[in-house]
Amino acid sequence: MGNCFGCSKNTNIRLKLPAVCLIWEIAMIILFGFFIRYNNEADPHWNMHKKTKNISSDIENDFYFRYPSFQDVHVMIFVGFGFLMTFLKRYSFGAVGFNFLIAAFGIQWALLMQGWFSFFDATDWKIKIGVENLINADFCVAGCLIAYGAVLGKVSPVQLLVMTLFGVTLYAVEEFIILHVLHAKDAGGSMVIHTFGAYYGLSISWVLYRPELYQSKRLQGSVYHSDVFAMIGTLFLWMFWPSFNSAISYHGDGQHRAAINTYLSLAATVLTTVAISSLTKEKGKLDMVHIQNSTLAGGVAVGTAAEFMLMPYGSLIVGFLCGIISTLGYVYISPFLESKLKIQDTCGIHNLHAMPGLIGGIVGAVTAACATEGVYGEEGLMLVFESPGRPLNMTPSLQGSHQAAGLCVALIFGIGGGIIVGLILKLPIWGDPTDDNCFDDEVYWEIPEEDDNHPSVLEFSSHMRNNHQGV
Amino acid sequence: MGNCFGCSKNTNIRLKLPAVCLIWEIAMIILFGFFIRYNNEADPHWNMHKKTKNISSDIENDFYFRYPSFQDVHVMIFVGFGFLMTFLKRYSFGAVGFNFLIAAFGIQWALLMQGWFSFFDATDWKIKIGVENLINADFCVAGCLIAYGAVLGKVSPVQLLVMTLFGVTLYAVEEFIILHVLHAKDAGGSMVIHTFGAYYGLSISWVLYRPELYQSKRLQGSVYHSDVFAMIGTLFLWMFWPSFNSAISYHGDGQHRAAINTYLSLAATVLTTVAISSLTKEKGKLDMVHIQNSTLAGGVAVGTAAEFMLMPYGSLIVGFLCGIISTLGYVYISPFLESKLKIQDTCGIHNLHAMPGLIGGIVGAVTAACATEGVYGEEGLMLVFESPGRPLNMTPSLQGSHQAAGLCVALIFGIGGGIIVGLILKLPIWGDPTDDNCFDDEVYWEIPEEDDNHPSVLEFSSHMRNNHQGV
Amino acid sequence: MGNCFGCSKNTNIRLKLPAVCLIWEIAMIILFGFFIRYNNEADPHWNMHKKTKNISSDIENDFYFRYPSFQDVHVMIFVGFGFLMTFLKRYSFGAVGFNFLIAAFGIQWALLMQGWFSFFDATDWKIKIGVENLINADFCVAGCLIAYGAVLGKVSPVQLLVMTLFGVTLYAVEEFIILHVLHAKDAGGSMVIHTFGAYYGLSISWVLYRPELYQSKRLQGSVYHSDVFAMIGTLFLWMFWPSFNSAISYHGDGQHRAAINTYLSLAATVLTTVAISSLTKEKGKLDMVHIQNSTLAGGVAVGTAAEFMLMPYGSLIVGFLCGIISTLGYVYISPFLESKLKIQDTCGIHNLHAMPGLIGGIVGAVTAACATEGVYGEEGLMLVFESPGRPLNMTPSLQGSHQAAGLCVALIFGIGGGIIVGLILKLPIWGDPTDDNCFDDEVYWEIPEEDDNHPSVLEFSSHMRNNHQGV
Repeated sequence: MGNCFGCSKNTNIRLKLPAVCLIWEIAMIILFGFFIRYNNEADPHWNMHKKTKNISSDIENDFYFRYPSFQDVHVMIFVGFGFLMTFLKRYSFGAVGFNFLIAAFGIQWALLMQGWFSFFDATDWKIKIGVENLINADFCVAGCLIAYGAVLGKVSPVQLLVMTLFGVTLYAVEEFIILHVLHAKDAGGSMVIHTFGAYYGLSISWVLYRPELYQSKRLQGSVYHSDVFAMIGTLFLWMFWPSFNSAISYHGDGQHRAAINTYLSLAATVLTTVAISSLTKEKGKLDMVHIQNSTLAGGVAVGTAAEFMLMPYGSLIVGFLCGIISTLGYVYISPFLESKLKIQDTCGIHNLHAMPGLIGGIVGAVTAACATEGVYGEEGLMLVFESPGRPLNMTPSLQGSHQAAGLCVALIFGIGGGIIVGLILKLPIWGDPTDDNCFDDEVYWEIPEEDDNHPSVLEFSSHMRNNHQGV
Repeated sequence: MGNCFGCSKNTNIRLKLPAVCLIWEIAMIILFGFFIRYNNEADPHWNMHKKTKNISSDIENDFYFRYPSFQDVHVMIFVGFGFLMTFLKRYSFGAVGFNFLIAAFGIQWALLMQGWFSFFDATDWKIKIGVENLINADFCVAGCLIAYGAVLGKVSPVQLLVMTLFGVTLYAVEEFIILHVLHAKDAGGSMVIHTFGAYYGLSISWVLYRPELYQSKRLQGSVYHSDVFAMIGTLFLWMFWPSFNSAISYHGDGQHRAAINTYLSLAATVLTTVAISSLTKEKGKLDMVHIQNSTLAGGVAVGTAAEFMLMPYGSLIVGFLCGIISTLGYVYISPFLESKLKIQDTCGIHNLHAMPGLIGGIVGAVTAACATEGVYGEEGLMLVFESPGRPLNMTPSLQGSHQAAGLCVALIFGIGGGIIVGLILKLPIWGDPTDDNCFDDEVYWEIPEEDDNHPSVLEFSSHMRNNHQGV
Repeated sequence: MGNCFGCSKNTNIRLKLPAVCLIWEIAMIILFGFFIRYNNEADPHWNMHKKTKNISSDIENDFYFRYPSFQDVHVMIFVGFGFLMTFLKRYSFGAVGFNFLIAAFGIQWALLMQGWFSFFDATDWKIKIGVENLINADFCVAGCLIAYGAVLGKVSPVQLLVMTLFGVTLYAVEEFIILHVLHAKDAGGSMVIHTFGAYYGLSISWVLYRPELYQSKRLQGSVYHSDVFAMIGTLFLWMFWPSFNSAISYHGDGQHRAAINTYLSLAATVLTTVAISSLTKEKGKLDMVHIQNSTLAGGVAVGTAAEFMLMPYGSLIVGFLCGIISTLGYVYISPFLESKLKIQDTCGIHNLHAMPGLIGGIVGAVTAACATEGVYGEEGLMLVFESPGRPLNMTPSLQGSHQAAGLCVALIFGIGGGIIVGLILKLPIWGDPTDDNCFDDEVYWEIPEEDDNHPSVLEFSSHMRNNHQGV
C-alpha cells in the first residue's frame, strides 16, 4: 500500500530542474552585478595598493599564500566528496554528477551569503572577493555535501538544490555567529562545517524517513569496481585535508602548523581504523566501508584545533581516538540509528562527520582554554586567537567557553535547520523517487545500454520490480 | 565493397611506430643540445642575477609564482584530457595511452618551436627555458589534444604523432602572430589554443571522413564504468581550469583575477548545462555526454578575457551562455555536422572547444575595446595590455580590433592547417584502422583476456565481425 | 604436498593485525610526546624568529617554498603508488588499501627515525619538524612502497607492517650515511629511495620464493578496467615527479632546475617505452604493463642529478635510455629473474626502480665529477653541493667518488637488509596466504557480493579451488 502511493510518484523533472537551474542562475547574475567586485589584491589597482601598504613584492599578494591550498580544497569538494559517494553499485552518476551540480550552485550562493554577513563593505555596499572568499565558498558547500551523504540516492536533484540553497543560507548565519559574534576560532571547520553539515543532513534524513526502503535493498551495496572508485574520493580527501585545515589559517606559522597537525592526525586514524575494522569482523577481514570513511575522521576532528598548539602527539591522540570511534560507529551505531531513531544515513555521515566534528569542537575548546603565553609567546597568543572585534582582555578560559558555545550554535543550526528544511522537502512536488527506485541512476540519468550478453544490474532489478508489481 | 578496401588495410605498426618514436626522440636530443639552456632563474648563476636585479629573496623566483599552476595544468593535459576521452566502451587504453604519447612528444617539440619563435636569444642562438616555457609547452600540446578528440578511435598512433608534429608547428606560428605581431592578449588561450585546436581537428576529421563508419557502431557508445572514468577527466579539467587561465597571467592581481573569473564562469556553466540537458530529453533525464563536456565550456570562453576586468557578473554571464550553447550543440549541431557537413567529431569538440573558443575570442575583443582608465587605473591598463613591442599609443578600441584579428588568424591556421595535414594523413601508409575496426583497443593494444564466464564486448563483437565477413 | 602445507596456513589476522596496529600507534604517541616538536617556522614564535633572522615577510616561511611540492609528493605516495598496483584483476583493494595502511604507519615512524639521525637537536633532545620533514617522511615511505611492489599479493598486511618498520629503520640509517657521512647529494633519491627500496623488496621476495605460485595463476593478470585504474597511478606519478625530485632541493634555481630536468627526462622516456613495447610484440601492439611502468623510469634515473647542471639535452638522454632499458627489462629480464634467480617480482620493480635507480646513481656521480666553476659559477658550485659538515676543499672528482660510494651503501643496505627481513617474514606466524590464494582480495577483505547473473571471478575461482581440493 505504501508502495502504491510510491508508484504514483512522478519523477519526471523535465520542467522543474531546468526551471530551478535557470531562474537561480539568472538571480545569481543579477545579485553578483549589484554586489560582487574584486578585492584590492585581485584588482588592477593592486600596484597602487602595494605602494600604500608598503608591500615590496607581488609574491606577497594573498593569492600566493592561499592558491595552492585553494586548489587542493577544490579537489576535495568536487573529486573527493563526489567519488567518495560512488561506492553504490548503480548510483555513481548521481554521486559524482549531483555533487557537481550542487557544489557549483552552492559556491555562487555562498559567495553572496558569506559576503553579506562577513565581507560586506558598508561604504559602497559591495562585497569584495579574493582567493580567501573562494576557499570560504568551497568550505560552505562542504557542509551541504556532507548532508548529501545522508540522503544519497533517496532524493531528486531538485530537492538537493533546495537543500543547498537553505544549507548555504543557514551556514552563513551560524558561521557569522560563531566566528564574528562569539569570536570562536575554527580554521578547519570541525564545528562550522562538519558538525553543522552532519546534523543538518541527519535531521533532513530523519524527517524524510522511508519505512519501505528495503524495497531497493538490491541496490544498496557496492560492487568491486565501485569500491575502487570510492577510494579515489577517500584518498584525495585524505591527502589534501592538511590543505583544508590550513587554507584560511593566518600566514606563516599558522598555516604551517595546521598542515602538520592534520597530516599526523590522519596518519594515526588509518591505523586504528584498520585495527577496529579487522577486530569487528569474522576472520579479521577488513571492510571497505570503514577504510573509505573512518580513515578520514582524524582530519575532521583536528579541524578546530589545527592551528592551535595541539602538539604533534596531541594530533596523534585525536586521530587515534577518532579512528576507533568512527569505525565502531559504522559497526554499532549506524544500525541503531536506522532501526531505533529512524535515521537512514546512506554514507554514514554520523560516523565520519557528526561524532568527529563534536570531538573536534571539544578538542578545540580545551586546547584554547589551556593556551598559555609560555607556549605561544605573547605575540603568538594574540595572533592565533585574534578576530576582528575580539575584546583584548579575553582570557584563554573565556576563549574556551566561547568555543564550546560555538559548538552548540552549530548543533542548533544543524538540527533546527535540518528539520525545517526536511519538512519543506517532504512536499510532494520535488520529483523524488519511489521507495523501490532509490539508489538507482536510471531514474534521473540516461544510462548506456549494456551488451546483450552482459545483462546489467538494472535489467535484472527491473525484472524484479515487474514481478513485484505483478503481485 | 568499401569494406573490402578497408579489410585489406594493414594496421601492423611494429616498424612504423618505433621508427617514428626513436628517430624523433633522437632529433629532439640533438636539437635540445644545440638550442636549449636553462634561463636565469633556473641556472646556478641565479644568485648573481638576484643581486643584479635587486631581488631580495629566493621566493621571488618565477618558479614560486607559477609552479603550482604549472602542476595543475600538467594534470589537465595528462589526466584531464586523457580520462575525458575514456568514455568509449573499448577505447580507454587508446584514450589515456595515446594522449600520453602525443602529449609527451608534443611538449618537447613545443619547447623548440615556441622557443625559436618567442623565446629566442639572438645573442647566443639559444632558447633559455624556465617554468613559464613548461606551461607554454603544455598549452601548445593542449591544442593537439583537442584535435585528437575529433578523430578519437579512427586513427593510428603514427597518424597522431604526425598530427602533433604539424599541430605544434602551426601553433607556434599562429601564437607568434597573434601575441607578438598583433599584440593581442590571450592568457587562457580561447583563440590560440581552443579555436585553433578545434578547427584543426575538425578539418582533419572532415578530410578523413569515413562514410562506412556505422560498421563500428557497436563500439561507439559508453558503458556504465567508462562514463565514471570519463568524469575523472571532466572534474580535473573543471577544477584546475582557474590555474590554466591564470598560469601565464602577469604576477599579482593578474593571476588572482584570472583565477576568480574562471572559477565563476565554470560554476555558472554547470547549472545551464544541467538545465538544457534535462530540457532536451524525454522525462528530463540527464545525459552524461553533456555533463562530461559542456560543463567545461565556460572555462574555454573566459580564456582570453580572464585577466581583463570582465567583472564577476560578466564571468557568470559568459558561463551561463556557454553552458546553453554547448549543450544545444551536442543535441542539434553535432548530428547536423555529421550528416550534412561530413564531419565526424567523436568527442564533440565543436561544442566544447570551437564554439566556446569563438565566443571567448569575441568576449575578449569586446572587453578589451571597452577598457578604460577609470576601471583599470593608468598603471593597471598598461600592465594588463602590455606586450613586448606594443605601441604605447594603442587605444582600447584598436586593441579590440587586434583581438578580433587574432581570432581570425587562429581560425585560418586551424582550418587551413587541418586540411593540409588531413591530406597528408590520408596517405595509405600510416596503419589506420578499417571502418569496422574503429573505436577498438584491440587493434593497437594487447588486451587482457577476460574470464570464461564473463564474455567480453570484444569477443561478442569479433563474433559479429566474423558473421559479417561470412556474408 | 606443498599445497597441503599451504592449505593448513591460517590467514586469520583478527588478533595479529589489530594488535600490531594499536600497539605501534600507542608507541608512536609516546615517542612523539617525548621527542617531536614544531620547528621555528611552524611555531607561534615564528614572528620573533623572523625578526632575529631579518626575514621580511611571512611568505619566506619554508612552508611556501615547499608545500605545493609536498602535496604533489603526498599524492604520488597514496594515489600514485596505490593505484599503480591496482592492475591485478582481484587485488585492487589490497593494492590501494594496504598501500594506504603501510604509508600511514611508515610516515610516523620515519619522522622519528629520520629525526633521530638527521634532525636531532642535542640541546633539548627534541626533533623539530616542519614541512621538509613531512616530505622526507613521504620519501622514506616511498622506499617501502617500492618494496611492496615486489611482494604484492603474496604477503599479509601484518608482514607488510613488519617490512615497513624495518624498511624505514634501514632507510634512515643508509640515508644518514649517504647524505651526512659521505656528503653525497641525492635530491630525488635515485640511490637513497629507489635503489635501496628496489633491492630491499627484491631480496625479500627472493627469500620468500614460492615455487608453487602457479597455483594462483588465474589471478595474476589484469582485466580491462583494472588496467585503466592503474593508469591513474601511472599518470599521477608521472605528472608529479618533477615535484618529487625538486621537493627538497635548495630554494630558487635548485628547485627550478630539478623540476625542468625531470619534466624533460620523463617526456623522453614515454617515447622510447612506446617504441620498444611496440617493437617487441607481434603486430606492434602496445603492452599496458610497459606503458604503466617503464614510462616512469626516466623520473627515477634523474633523481640524483636533477638539481645538478645535467642540461636539458642530458635529461632527454637519460630518459631516452631508461625507457629502452626498463621496457627490455620487462620483456627479457623479469622472466629470467623468476625462472633462474627465483625472484618473483609482481610489479616488476627491478625494471622500474632497481635498474633506473642504479643508472641514476651513476649519472649523478658522473655529473658531480664533471662539475666546473665555469658551468655553475663559484657561488653556485658551493650551493649545489653544500651539505652540513662537508669539507670545503672537496673537489668535484672527490664528490663524484663519494656519490658512487653512496650508491654502494644503498645497494648493501637494500640487499643485506632485505635478506634479514625476509628471513623474519618467513616465520609461520604472520598469516600470509597459501600459494593458491595469492593475489586474491578475498583473503583479507570483505568482498561485495556480485549479482546472481554476473558470476564473479571470485566465484569462478573458488569453484576451481574446490574442485582442486576435491582431488
